[in-house]
Amino acid sequence: MSADWQGKRVLVTGGAGFLGSALCHALGAAGAQVVALDALLPGTGARRANLEGSGARLVEQDLRDADLHPLVEGVDVLFNMAGQTSHAGSQADPFTDLAINGHAQLRLIAALRDAAPAARVVHASTRQFYGRPQMLPVPESHPIVPPDNNGVSKFAAEQYWLLENRVHGRPVTALRLTNCYGPRMRVMDARQTFLGIWVRRVLEGEAFEIWGGGQLRDFSFVDDVVAAFVTAAEALASKPDAAAGRPFNIGGEAPITLQDLGDAMLAAAGEGRYVLKTFPAERAAIDIGSYHADDRLFRGVTGWRPRVTLAEGLRRTVDWFRPRLPAYLSDEI
Amino acid sequence: MSADWQGKRVLVTGGAGFLGSALCHALGAAGAQVVALDALLPGTGARRANLEGSGARLVEQDLRDADLHPLVEGVDVLFNMAGQTSHAGSQADPFTDLAINGHAQLRLIAALRDAAPAARVVHASTRQFYGRPQMLPVPESHPIVPPDNNGVSKFAAEQYWLLENRVHGRPVTALRLTNCYGPRMRVMDARQTFLGIWVRRVLEGEAFEIWGGGQLRDFSFVDDVVAAFVTAAEALASKPDAAAGRPFNIGGEAPITLQDLGDAMLAAAGEGRYVLKTFPAERAAIDIGSYHADDRLFRGVTGWRPRVTLAEGLRRTVDWFRPRLPAYLSDEI
Repeated sequence: MSADWQGKRVLVTGGAGFLGSALCHALGAAGAQVVALDALLPGTGARRANLEGSGARLVEQDLRDADLHPLVEGVDVLFNMAGQTSHAGSQADPFTDLAINGHAQLRLIAALRDAAPAARVVHASTRQFYGRPQMLPVPESHPIVPPDNNGVSKFAAEQYWLLENRVHGRPVTALRLTNCYGPRMRVMDARQTFLGIWVRRVLEGEAFEIWGGGQLRDFSFVDDVVAAFVTAAEALASKPDAAAGRPFNIGGEAPITLQDLGDAMLAAAGEGRYVLKTFPAERAAIDIGSYHADDRLFRGVTGWRPRVTLAEGLRRTVDWFRPRLPAYLSDEI
Repeated sequence: MSADWQGKRVLVTGGAGFLGSALCHALGAAGAQVVALDALLPGTGARRANLEGSGARLVEQDLRDADLHPLVEGVDVLFNMAGQTSHAGSQADPFTDLAINGHAQLRLIAALRDAAPAARVVHASTRQFYGRPQMLPVPESHPIVPPDNNGVSKFAAEQYWLLENRVHGRPVTALRLTNCYGPRMRVMDARQTFLGIWVRRVLEGEAFEIWGGGQLRDFSFVDDVVAAFVTAAEALASKPDAAAGRPFNIGGEAPITLQDLGDAMLAAAGEGRYVLKTFPAERAAIDIGSYHADDRLFRGVTGWRPRVTLAEGLRRTVDWFRPRLPAYLSDEI
């Protein structure tokens, strides 16, 4: 990370979550003054413990009703990681999904316009609204065909933020993430990523389930994701014409089938087993098949590339959770 | 129209508006039992008088808070014309824009699932979220780059509806409309279409303004739009595999520059004048340049094509408003 982060005022929404807290640790270590805003909602992966040792100040408020003005005032950079990301949850309750990804984002945008007109913004977006890929690898120009309500609301959130650049000139970019994994991810269940429940099962000595098995996916280790966000924020300052106002895919090292990933997980853990399952009909309707990102645009603009191999990332993930599993299975937030 | 509409139970949301009321007239004439649901909000173009003689029953309720269950129960076809369509309004108040195009649409979807599980749905969508065209004519696969908040929320609305097909199998389609014009459009101002204020100015003996002048646009006369919606609903029954689950562009006869359109307006009215103006900077940011639709997909699936020439449509529009202008300039809804 560049030395420029020393003393910078940074707000990380969703700061107690998996990716948000990892950003807080990295930014804190680089000397930034970090505020982590988080509603600490059950089911999101947010935990106070994620921030231990980061130096970030945790503000426990919800974007849907917080008084945002004092929180954003004077902020230099906003990393906007807060969002509803549950696919199944969005189908069961699309209203809450839209309130978090739509209405709350508009509140944050309005507050930023009032109180931090020059702040740079890196928004956490997702590849999930591409739906079932019509080409591989998937470029940013791929049609938007959301497979669920969450895809609709997350695309709206991204576009609201990009409009702040296109209409109002704010330095804003959005990173469309693929499957992210690593320390502090949610492992209680598969709500955040199916890799979470895999890690849990392996460490519990139980079989994990692979649904399908032949689908290709790509995976981003958390340190690479953090580097992408930091690099994006720096590019918004150093080369705004290239970096602002457009979404960028963030991919992984190379795509891998889910079954090969299962084998890599077993190798990383040195133990475990999995069972192959076929998709039930009600899930097949929202499954997207194979996906891997074409992220050459972001690599070209910023020079970023993934540094952590899948084997290494899985090993570090399993090793990190091994002594911490009970804490991460607790309901305590 | 096919004879199948006799006795059909039809709900038209936004039924007192420009296009909604035109649909009510056509469906009523074909023997359907039509309920027009409309919140009669100021600035939308809704007027009770639009429904006079249609035979439709007007229900004055707002999708944001109405008890929708009894309204949708037993409905055979829903024409979903209600929506916030003001571009400038969405920039001034994105919250209301999202409440109408997002939250209220989710309410209607939920009610329909409970009380009319088999109803066909034709949703009124828009070309406006394509943003500034990257190719001409614009196909449905064009990237989605909303130029304003309204484009974000209208795309979300469309996708929420299409998910009802893709995930739940309901016969749903969406028509992406271009500039629509004709009797009963809003002429008080340019909020619904700039052609409205042109008609007003011509009939008042004042000059209308053409912003730019060289941009190409296409125009749909209201009778052709009504035919498109009716045809789409019929196709959802007769050929659901081809018609359901995808959006269709609806275009006009042939594109025309705005200055040529101004000349056509003067010819249709037999009077009037215009002044050419250059775009101010704050509007240029959300202007989209030239647009015309590639609507071959819809023509191919349904056999629909525009029947009313621009010259004829403009003449019929001006003639219709000539004796009615004072009524359409009144604030009375």
